[in-house]
Amino acid sequence: MIEIGERDRLATTEARDVALECLEAGIEAGHPRRVVRDAVSLEEATLRVADATFDLEAYDDVVVLGGGNAAAHVAAALEGILGDRIDGGVVVTDDPVEIDRVAVRRGDHPVPSERGVEGTREVLEAADAADEGTLVLAAITGGGSALMAAPAGDVTLEALRETTDALLESGATIHEINAVRKHLSDLKGGRLAQRAAPATVVSLILSDVVGNDVSVIASGPLAPDGSTYEDAREVIDRYGIDVPNVVSRRLERGAAGELPETPGYDDPAFQSVTNRVVADGMTVLESAREVAASRGYETLVLSSRIRGEAREAALAHVAVAEEARATGEPVSPPAVILSGGETTVTVRGEGRGGPNQEFATSAALEVAGGITVAAIDTDGIDGPTDAAGAIVDASTVDDAAAARAALAENDVEPYLAERDALVVTGPTGTNLNDLRVLVVG
Amino acid sequence: MIEIGERDRLATTEARDVALECLEAGIEAGHPRRVVRDAVSLEEATLRVADATFDLEAYDDVVVLGGGNAAAHVAAALEGILGDRIDGGVVVTDDPVEIDRVAVRRGDHPVPSERGVEGTREVLEAADAADEGTLVLAAITGGGSALMAAPAGDVTLEALRETTDALLESGATIHEINAVRKHLSDLKGGRLAQRAAPATVVSLILSDVVGNDVSVIASGPLAPDGSTYEDAREVIDRYGIDVPNVVSRRLERGAAGELPETPGYDDPAFQSVTNRVVADGMTVLESAREVAASRGYETLVLSSRIRGEAREAALAHVAVAEEARATGEPVSPPAVILSGGETTVTVRGEGRGGPNQEFATSAALEVAGGITVAAIDTDGIDGPTDAAGAIVDASTVDDAAAARAALAENDVEPYLAERDALVVTGPTGTNLNDLRVLVVG
Repeated sequence: MIEIGERDRLATTEARDVALECLEAGIEAGHPRRVVRDAVSLEEATLRVADATFDLEAYDDVVVLGGGNAAAHVAAALEGILGDRIDGGVVVTDDPVEIDRVAVRRGDHPVPSERGVEGTREVLEAADAADEGTLVLAAITGGGSALMAAPAGDVTLEALRETTDALLESGATIHEINAVRKHLSDLKGGRLAQRAAPATVVSLILSDVVGNDVSVIASGPLAPDGSTYEDAREVIDRYGIDVPNVVSRRLERGAAGELPETPGYDDPAFQSVTNRVVADGMTVLESAREVAASRGYETLVLSSRIRGEAREAALAHVAVAEEARATGEPVSPPAVILSGGETTVTVRGEGRGGPNQEFATSAALEVAGGITVAAIDTDGIDGPTDAAGAIVDASTVDDAAAARAALAENDVEPYLAERDALVVTGPTGTNLNDLRVLVVG
Repeated sequence: MIEIGERDRLATTEARDVALECLEAGIEAGHPRRVVRDAVSLEEATLRVADATFDLEAYDDVVVLGGGNAAAHVAAALEGILGDRIDGGVVVTDDPVEIDRVAVRRGDHPVPSERGVEGTREVLEAADAADEGTLVLAAITGGGSALMAAPAGDVTLEALRETTDALLESGATIHEINAVRKHLSDLKGGRLAQRAAPATVVSLILSDVVGNDVSVIASGPLAPDGSTYEDAREVIDRYGIDVPNVVSRRLERGAAGELPETPGYDDPAFQSVTNRVVADGMTVLESAREVAASRGYETLVLSSRIRGEAREAALAHVAVAEEARATGEPVSPPAVILSGGETTVTVRGEGRGGPNQEFATSAALEVAGGITVAAIDTDGIDGPTDAAGAIVDASTVDDAAAARAALAENDVEPYLAERDALVVTGPTGTNLNDLRVLVVG
């Protein structure tokens, strides 16, 4: 154990406060009520969504459609602004809130469920009903891919699950996985845009995808798709994936030209679609940065795109914080170093934990005094635990061997809980990936 | 393969040039001839070493002792400054150069050899011969621990090797490993300082250890040692390490008080020792930064302390570079992002490569256009290959599956060689860990 002196101990208390304030500010900035308030306004009949404007007088109906972890919060915020200008709609989510004018249907995430399929069917029916006189406000957020499951043709939910599981285990890239999923869905890969055409569609997207590719977020229900049935078939072949017959048959029929392709960039359906990413990881980071700066800290936003194995990403972050403390590079202490993105855990053991808890544990094993490290998932749920993440410093690891053993068993949650290092927020209403805060005294 | 546009292609050529210039400048700045020239000067009889000065008139003899990969280059540079003021000395190295007044003995690294033991014996004899009238200039550089092997008592070189191998495989920390090694050596853990006392000793240390702990660099031959025989025995027990009898017997006898302890902080031997770290990873980074800045690039030194699995560290670096390119955080392009430290490779396959080559390959798999990534070991030898490292961009990986397979087999050297991506320098005469340069257009 590394001893920290009294000066550092006092500094640590303040550092913890600052770190926790940054976490709170980041989550609050990413909540749909803030995001929608910043992005959407209504002046008389003019609706502004980010830099796009729409004249409500030109439409007979305004409906809200969509899905994702935060979709109901988005819908609620829209209702707060638009009130009775909203004529109806339906969203599918696992984080429901009550809304007067929009139906909120329960779905499930990360494993899609039958009730999610039913809710999604309502979304598609509402899209079908939309016509030239309809303005569709689409709430698309992270988790939408599982929540808005819409198995196409004779593909069953069970077949979809099996295929998705096999794809996730195969080592295929997200683009390869999506090429398959989009060709098994009535909604993904731009199909929702086709269904809603010729209505005017404006989406409000909360991005949980690094780089904000709208064809990837929630599997791109309103974005053109460049992939084909043939591509999907090749992915299955390339990774030797064993898929249900109903899936391989559909991909074969599609590749043979017997089924309509997902709509591409030149599809007329997209002429009336306006996609806007209204929040992403940087939204969270900027807000956390403002708080740190207002408390007199120098700030450095490393990246909103951190990925890789959580415990390894922690080493790089600690290396930056240590350098700052020792030499003032790349930022002079007192400083707050921030990052976002999404790290992963290669599960080898059978314990409890999540990427942010492993990040924190790995960091705690490395850091010297004067550095406080906090890491959370902004949705409040880090892995299959009740914690959002953890906050640690050099004093957290009082037993390095036990900490290493916990990491080896992917069982850091009990270790951190015993040391009062967990950060528990409950579901936050948003989902903008991870937020990491390193306070360097 | 990610296509890069014509603008990016032209930018890439310039980016490669800048990256290679940064590598060259970093290596040159870390070479003993530059380091010693900057740190050491002689005005009449006053010798300055960093911030310490010595009056040569006060000494009968000036001798150069030491060891490490760069020790002969340090000795040569000292001779260039001091000329015939040097009366003799001996250094042990695997990178010999001819020097008039100092004997250069061959040793081996990373596995210590009998010839290294013989050379080290000469170093110890010269230390024994030094007296109050002797000024010892000690050249201590990375690799010194293996090169200056001095098995103590009846410990054999073979027993030392076996013990070191077992320790390295055990998961013990570097401090634990050193606690054992220092108690099996006639030179490490401050023993050289004891042997040289009462001579005046000033060391010139080129640090390959993050944080520059002089008790860790080359296992601290001139630094006090806080560990004990009992600590060493506990490490062996803690990790259940099977050591040769001659080793366990020595540690037992030492723990029983039958052998003299390594000298601690209050040992009088250190009263006449002045340790100075004259170069470290930051020396390399600062020089690379100057070159980048002079070419008009914004610069960011992330850290001189990067560690962890090479391919994972690459992901964090790429995430920072991508953010810079997309949003101007944490540095505005055109920018050069630099880091040092030492990454590692968990060997699972049987191929050829090294940490910097794996770093580059992993980065090449991830980067989009407009980012060039170079990574080398400043000693010119990355893993057991002839390359120092590699330079890559988005166009390097023309076959992602093959690149991934090469990483899985730890066989990236052939992959990079085929794509003309290796950086080959030959032995550079220095050893200041890794240098990574990311050029963001």
